[in-house]
Amino acid sequence: MNIYDVSQHAGVSIATVSRVLNGNPNVSEKTREKVLKVMDELGYTPNVFARGLGLDTMHTVGIMCSDSSDPYLANAIYYLERSLRANGYDSILCCTGYDLEVKQKYFSLLRSKRVDAIILAGSKFVEMRAKDNAYILEAAADLPVMLVNGYLEGDNIFSTVCDDKSAVEQAVSLLIESGHRDILYLYSSYSYSGVNKLEGYKKALRTHGIPLRQEMIRQCPKDVEASRDLLLSLDRQGIFFDAVMTSDDSLAVGAVKYAHARDISIPDNLSIIGYNNSLLALCTDPEITSVDTKVEALCTTTVNTLMGVFSGVNVPSRTTIASDLIKRNTTKW
Amino acid sequence: MNIYDVSQHAGVSIATVSRVLNGNPNVSEKTREKVLKVMDELGYTPNVFARGLGLDTMHTVGIMCSDSSDPYLANAIYYLERSLRANGYDSILCCTGYDLEVKQKYFSLLRSKRVDAIILAGSKFVEMRAKDNAYILEAAADLPVMLVNGYLEGDNIFSTVCDDKSAVEQAVSLLIESGHRDILYLYSSYSYSGVNKLEGYKKALRTHGIPLRQEMIRQCPKDVEASRDLLLSLDRQGIFFDAVMTSDDSLAVGAVKYAHARDISIPDNLSIIGYNNSLLALCTDPEITSVDTKVEALCTTTVNTLMGVFSGVNVPSRTTIASDLIKRNTTKW
Repeated sequence: MNIYDVSQHAGVSIATVSRVLNGNPNVSEKTREKVLKVMDELGYTPNVFARGLGLDTMHTVGIMCSDSSDPYLANAIYYLERSLRANGYDSILCCTGYDLEVKQKYFSLLRSKRVDAIILAGSKFVEMRAKDNAYILEAAADLPVMLVNGYLEGDNIFSTVCDDKSAVEQAVSLLIESGHRDILYLYSSYSYSGVNKLEGYKKALRTHGIPLRQEMIRQCPKDVEASRDLLLSLDRQGIFFDAVMTSDDSLAVGAVKYAHARDISIPDNLSIIGYNNSLLALCTDPEITSVDTKVEALCTTTVNTLMGVFSGVNVPSRTTIASDLIKRNTTKW
Repeated sequence: MNIYDVSQHAGVSIATVSRVLNGNPNVSEKTREKVLKVMDELGYTPNVFARGLGLDTMHTVGIMCSDSSDPYLANAIYYLERSLRANGYDSILCCTGYDLEVKQKYFSLLRSKRVDAIILAGSKFVEMRAKDNAYILEAAADLPVMLVNGYLEGDNIFSTVCDDKSAVEQAVSLLIESGHRDILYLYSSYSYSGVNKLEGYKKALRTHGIPLRQEMIRQCPKDVEASRDLLLSLDRQGIFFDAVMTSDDSLAVGAVKYAHARDISIPDNLSIIGYNNSLLALCTDPEITSVDTKVEALCTTTVNTLMGVFSGVNVPSRTTIASDLIKRNTTKW
């Protein structure tokens, strides 16, 4: 029997139960009575020993990520764990996969473990339909929910995002300004971050007066061979492109492999830009110009914001981190 | 006050306290009396509610890895977490870095969190000097310690390892049998796994009557550019090699980049073999022949063994998983 059970039975948040226990005046008399009644019914006595040491918290944060073997997310987990540890918090890791129901299941699991907060790493957690995000909003009534490169509006939900739209807009603008007109855009998912990147591509074309052609926007699994094969097939269909902007380095690696397969010279006849500036961008010849999304800054800022939330500081609900374009040899500048 | 405090004060393991609580006859009368006396002194009463539900355990396992942003370890963490979750266990992740003192610090931290077991992922946790491993042996008195691709002899320590020695021996033998004599061996660390790989290289040469030359065995940081630059410098020194066997895919990628830089044709004039069969092996042209170390099998076997330990089954202290050589285009066969 503990503070969590009391909050469940009384239908109030853990924070409210805690306020009642600590004699905080910031609770209505009606709520206070309800909480005390439930404590009585459940036979709950606060663990004075634990509370005296500030142990009513587990000092544990749940990290959910869709797939820790994705190089971007693997880095994010590394930085999140390190940063939480430096603040005295353990990380419980959940690799959820991409299925909504599974994500919801893990979410309630973490809540039942009484973690102090939940961090959702990567932009795959915010769904298109509002009703599919209801479980996140609901959980946020009890504990802070932190989104790393995702955005959801709601009380007690805090986002740290990369300026994906400007990043892609800037990269595509540079391609246009160095003479490219037929710029293919390859993306793998239509997440929060995915939508923003696509917007950036469209904006760059619009700003430069280049007509948007749907055939130049292609979805592709985040996989080197799938990307290479897609480009080979566009080539066979006679769709011409002189540059490829991608939403992930793996797609850019596929573009390099396509160029090698077709004996196309990079960057003379094809420019390629990757995204995330991962190890993969360094594996090819030539090495790939890539957008550095500053995953370390994204993660340490997320944890700093969370620590602000814990200490009751008024923190912003959204923080944006600027990205950088790392120029290598798949582009002309 | 809980079972952990009792075990600390009585100077016995948690398992022993648990046996006393459960009336298990497998405890000496002297120990039983000591434990009961400590419980009395501390005013400990077992939480019947929790114990009835089997909640005297946190159902949490600590995973330590040196660096979760290493592609091999990122995969290992993914499979370990998934497999533990499937068995109803949470994973507390610790990214320790490579410093012994830091690893020791995290180790005691995890023990103080009362995790049910500790998994050491990767071969960087077993040190050369026995005294540097004393803290692991000591901890194993209280809780099972599982090593993923590392080996340490001791009670309550269980290893699941890849047959790195045979894997390298087989790969190098194939190089020799396809006509290579000057086979460079690039490795990054002298860990348990690193030592075995090097042994495999030496054994293959010996078996085929090829003299061992120290200048052909080179240590190199696990980094694409470092590997490429090392090979360029050997080249300038006039050290000839017609094949490169590596202990990690990143080193093999560096070898491909070296060949491109020097216009050496792969595999006609240089054969290259990677290790771990990671994403990196697929990024280059040609794609890299690589040893698949079966990280998924390694991790699920580790967790299965642990579940056996928890249920008191007699499990082997070492399990070896066979690797596979994935043939691609940096070798002739």
